[in-house]
Amino acid sequence: MSKDIALDEHLLIQKYFSDIGSAFLAERNVEITVGDDASVISSSRNTQQINSLDTSIEGVHFLSSMSSADIAYRSCVIALSDLAACGARPKWYSIAITLPQVEHSWLNSFSIGLQKFSDEYRIPLIGGDTTKGKLSITVQVMGEVDSNKAILRSTAKEDQLIFVSGVIGNAYLGLKELSDNLGTDSYSKAYLEPKAHIDLGLKLSDIASACIDISDGLLQDLNLICQSSNVGAEIYLEKIPTSISEKSLELINSGDDYELCFTVDEDKYDELMNISKTLNIPITLIGKTSFSKDLILYDADNQRVELNSGYSHF
Amino acid sequence: MSKDIALDEHLLIQKYFSDIGSAFLAERNVEITVGDDASVISSSRNTQQINSLDTSIEGVHFLSSMSSADIAYRSCVIALSDLAACGARPKWYSIAITLPQVEHSWLNSFSIGLQKFSDEYRIPLIGGDTTKGKLSITVQVMGEVDSNKAILRSTAKEDQLIFVSGVIGNAYLGLKELSDNLGTDSYSKAYLEPKAHIDLGLKLSDIASACIDISDGLLQDLNLICQSSNVGAEIYLEKIPTSISEKSLELINSGDDYELCFTVDEDKYDELMNISKTLNIPITLIGKTSFSKDLILYDADNQRVELNSGYSHF
Repeated sequence: MSKDIALDEHLLIQKYFSDIGSAFLAERNVEITVGDDASVISSSRNTQQINSLDTSIEGVHFLSSMSSADIAYRSCVIALSDLAACGARPKWYSIAITLPQVEHSWLNSFSIGLQKFSDEYRIPLIGGDTTKGKLSITVQVMGEVDSNKAILRSTAKEDQLIFVSGVIGNAYLGLKELSDNLGTDSYSKAYLEPKAHIDLGLKLSDIASACIDISDGLLQDLNLICQSSNVGAEIYLEKIPTSISEKSLELINSGDDYELCFTVDEDKYDELMNISKTLNIPITLIGKTSFSKDLILYDADNQRVELNSGYSHF
Repeated sequence: MSKDIALDEHLLIQKYFSDIGSAFLAERNVEITVGDDASVISSSRNTQQINSLDTSIEGVHFLSSMSSADIAYRSCVIALSDLAACGARPKWYSIAITLPQVEHSWLNSFSIGLQKFSDEYRIPLIGGDTTKGKLSITVQVMGEVDSNKAILRSTAKEDQLIFVSGVIGNAYLGLKELSDNLGTDSYSKAYLEPKAHIDLGLKLSDIASACIDISDGLLQDLNLICQSSNVGAEIYLEKIPTSISEKSLELINSGDDYELCFTVDEDKYDELMNISKTLNIPITLIGKTSFSKDLILYDADNQRVELNSGYSHF
């Protein structure tokens, strides 16, 4: 993947936010700071805390036509997904909501969505803030790992296998159904109710060398692993698991699925397939990391696919 | 203070957000949840974590005419102030920024504001999120207290003294200068660069029974202590420390100063005055808590002042 399709957000974060107060990281026991899925803070002797913050904006991260229960649930899962990518156990969350007005039926449904999320992942909402303005939801999630068990983006090695969980592009198809009012709902649930792969992340913390949750698009997010780890990647379009046979770049790089993309040593393949069976989550080999620093996508004829687009936050 | 001027935000939080996933509070070691300045989580045997989240919105919490360094600094201090009110030591912070566009000079200045904040309070920025949309900044701050040393809102007793730190209304006067383009800047710094009273909060954790940072207005915020603690309060307009002699309700209830309001047993008065001297922060007695559940404000002639306004978030 050439530089021109690199994610603006990450350049922006690197440029303006990667070195703020970094003199105090050590005395505050912060091990991993700005730039990974989540931050890692040493807490007790045997555990580290994993913190992440995610904002969902109307029209960008959710449709205004969605029920507020779905908006709440989706916003929370999106945030929690960063913890899954780190192999963390969720502990609690807090939420900052900006609302244009107080509408009780809307809020009631919103709180039902939060409750559903809390029940599913067994974590309490412990605080937050409400302000008046354009609808926007920021969710902070806190998790925990056993010391040095956090799976980072930056620790992939050359010649490792690259896998994705689940099916790629279903949320994209679902979003299309919802926004085009197609009248079908074969895939809409994939968009409305993504899952944070907490259980998979926990299992992967023993065998994956690097992991990311696919929020912006498979190519972009895998590229973040490559850049952070200083490796390249060669992946095969035909191997990427999709629900429809036409594997367009738009489909496979759509993001929104919150599946995990991760790297594993070749000799862990069988172990990984056992995890896939145990958790009943498809896990698919899509390529390998490489010595070159490029992300290369091959089509069915083993031809290199031109990559020049991707989701940019700005 | 009658119910009609109670803070909508807090009713809203109580109604929709106070009981989400509360079944999991105990197993996640959360001691204080939704409803106080910050949340309290047990961590190691001797400490508790203090977490808070605050959103600042353009036109509500800051002026669009402000420099982005001031916007960044002020948004962070506002969030940290909740930790001061709990008597916590700051540890780190994360930040979710929504931006209409990427403008490098703006971001550069914004990151200078963050750096100033980090340096002043000796805490690192450890993560966050950037999204595209209307300018809005959510800051999450994490702090720590020795176990059971957090100062809560809900533990004021009857017949205790009520104090405020600093001077009330300077930020209001500063905001007026800034927004009316008065051409003066006697008070603008009080609005642009409020201070989080971390050192005072730490000292108060040994002697204050309850504490809140004044963000929405003295009367409203004191009323939150009263409601949470199930006590009343009688305070005296003339005693409230202000920079100008005309103590209008608008001035004293303007919020934005981020001074602390707290309750202390009568026999701790001298100790408190010593703290005031040591830290070089004015601390002023403004009234007493009472058995009745009302907040009563007396004017210079000892007449009850009619209270029917206050800052409402919605």
